Amino acid sequence: MGVDTARSILLAVGSWDPEPWVAAIRAGDPERPLQVWPDLPVPSTVGYALVWEPPQGVLARLSGLKAIFSLCAGVDRLMAQPDLPYLPIVRVVNSDLARRMTEWVVLQVLIHHRRQRTYDRQQAARIWKELRQPAADEVRVGIMGLGVLGRDAAIVLRRIGFDVAGWSRRPANLPDIACFHGPDALDRFLARTDILVSLLPLTPQTRGILGIRLFEKLASDGPLGGPVLVNAGRGGLQVEADIIAAIEQGVLVGASLDVFESEPLDPKSPLWSLPNVVITPHAAAASEPKALIPPILDQIRKFEAGKPLRNLVDRDAMY
Amino acid sequence: MGVDTARSILLAVGSWDPEPWVAAIRAGDPERPLQVWPDLPVPSTVGYALVWEPPQGVLARLSGLKAIFSLCAGVDRLMAQPDLPYLPIVRVVNSDLARRMTEWVVLQVLIHHRRQRTYDRQQAARIWKELRQPAADEVRVGIMGLGVLGRDAAIVLRRIGFDVAGWSRRPANLPDIACFHGPDALDRFLARTDILVSLLPLTPQTRGILGIRLFEKLASDGPLGGPVLVNAGRGGLQVEADIIAAIEQGVLVGASLDVFESEPLDPKSPLWSLPNVVITPHAAAASEPKALIPPILDQIRKFEAGKPLRNLVDRDAMY
Repeated sequence: MGVDTARSILLAVGSWDPEPWVAAIRAGDPERPLQVWPDLPVPSTVGYALVWEPPQGVLARLSGLKAIFSLCAGVDRLMAQPDLPYLPIVRVVNSDLARRMTEWVVLQVLIHHRRQRTYDRQQAARIWKELRQPAADEVRVGIMGLGVLGRDAAIVLRRIGFDVAGWSRRPANLPDIACFHGPDALDRFLARTDILVSLLPLTPQTRGILGIRLFEKLASDGPLGGPVLVNAGRGGLQVEADIIAAIEQGVLVGASLDVFESEPLDPKSPLWSLPNVVITPHAAAASEPKALIPPILDQIRKFEAGKPLRNLVDRDAMY
Repeated sequence: MGVDTARSILLAVGSWDPEPWVAAIRAGDPERPLQVWPDLPVPSTVGYALVWEPPQGVLARLSGLKAIFSLCAGVDRLMAQPDLPYLPIVRVVNSDLARRMTEWVVLQVLIHHRRQRTYDRQQAARIWKELRQPAADEVRVGIMGLGVLGRDAAIVLRRIGFDVAGWSRRPANLPDIACFHGPDALDRFLARTDILVSLLPLTPQTRGILGIRLFEKLASDGPLGGPVLVNAGRGGLQVEADIIAAIEQGVLVGASLDVFESEPLDPKSPLWSLPNVVITPHAAAASEPKALIPPILDQIRKFEAGKPLRNLVDRDAMY
């Protein structure tokens, strides 16, 4: 066996600032050759591509490429590339990312549960008025998507006291959390959900799933006066015209959205100013180089020592 | 031993609506004689007083009284009564109350940690701008008061990922949480605190403790740009003129207040409109009759069967 010279890393982070990623790679593996897109002096030596929104056609040119590492939780844009090489794709599975997402999900669920938007309006008007407050165990939170992010959020929300259920494509099992799976169980899951949290991957099956037909199946008899949507998954999951209509018609009584069909969200979108709708700019769980790079470098070292790669994307499921 | 006829309950709930409390008592112990202040037809038969802000002089008139049950977490107003009989006082220690308080504390800590007020302002102006976000483990939360409420909040905040410490009068021990105790350790505790959560009881020692001298001892070099105050203990703990000055001078960069020196908060108070100050109307943890009454009735039954009362107020500590 000859010496394998394709051990260089290619970093391609689209519109992000590459500098902190470069610093984290150099700190974690100073000896590793590194090329930063759009500089690609020796494509044949690239063994590993670390990517966020890689430009079209780049990956297919790398003759020595052995694995692709996604730097964000969703791989839908990567998977959509028509010339994506048939190589292992490693998802980011990282406790830092899960913790950040759980912070955002817990914050948004509590904002709606504790009627913080109404208290904000009262504060602005200097009104002192206590609102009727259900206990957390009267409020049914339903989490769509029970990957690493969904499971972590589910466990913390359960610990806070909510009545938590989850729905996923494949069967899951979480202590003290009702787990539904598959298309047949979806309606039952929705019918027992007051606050719907979407942490689904974007696939052909889930695109546009967060629309009016789904919203109408949520519990309308809950203690919050109607159902609430929280989406931190992908913008392509949601139909924004349906969300606007559902809020205006009272089918939904509130929403928190971190992702949108098109980003940045159009300044003219009615979503910005709807009552009880919280908008954040795709900020729920930022990919942090200091947290994400060390486990990737560790995986590369183990792979070069003959160990299998972990957290691989399922090509058929597309996530 | 003669038959003890003083087994009636007196319910005295001040300005609250007595109806749900009466309903909960009747549901839990239908045979128990019940008198509801200001009706007090047979004072000598009252064995147990269930009180929130009892009127002056009432308790001293009850010759058969055996125990006083406080219906809210703070007993400072009860203890301040000059003619309070020297009888056992039972504090409310209840998982429902602790859960509700933890919801509020976690919500407020996350609002400041995740810069939700800034995102709210950006949303109102239709501005899409991601803010730099520290990880939870970079943010040091310090909880003053490690009773049932403080401990529950500390554990959930730790699970979310914050670097949590606690300070209490007496030594405490919580897994993975740095526990400080006593006056000598207070400055060290404050110096490592970015978000200060007050769940202290109001006693002669703690009155006015949340003032400018304490705020100036908090960490000023943290990832939030300065320290934040979260007070859900008692209004008497805080000096509101100092909070206003501290926010205006940048000694504090934010605050969440549920309690005030005088309630309702004066509509003219500058607190209502200070930036990054969240005001809620003493709504953090409402006393819920359905949750609080059953364990009280259970304690009364066990006491009548010869068992000791639990969760007694320490008369010397005054909480």
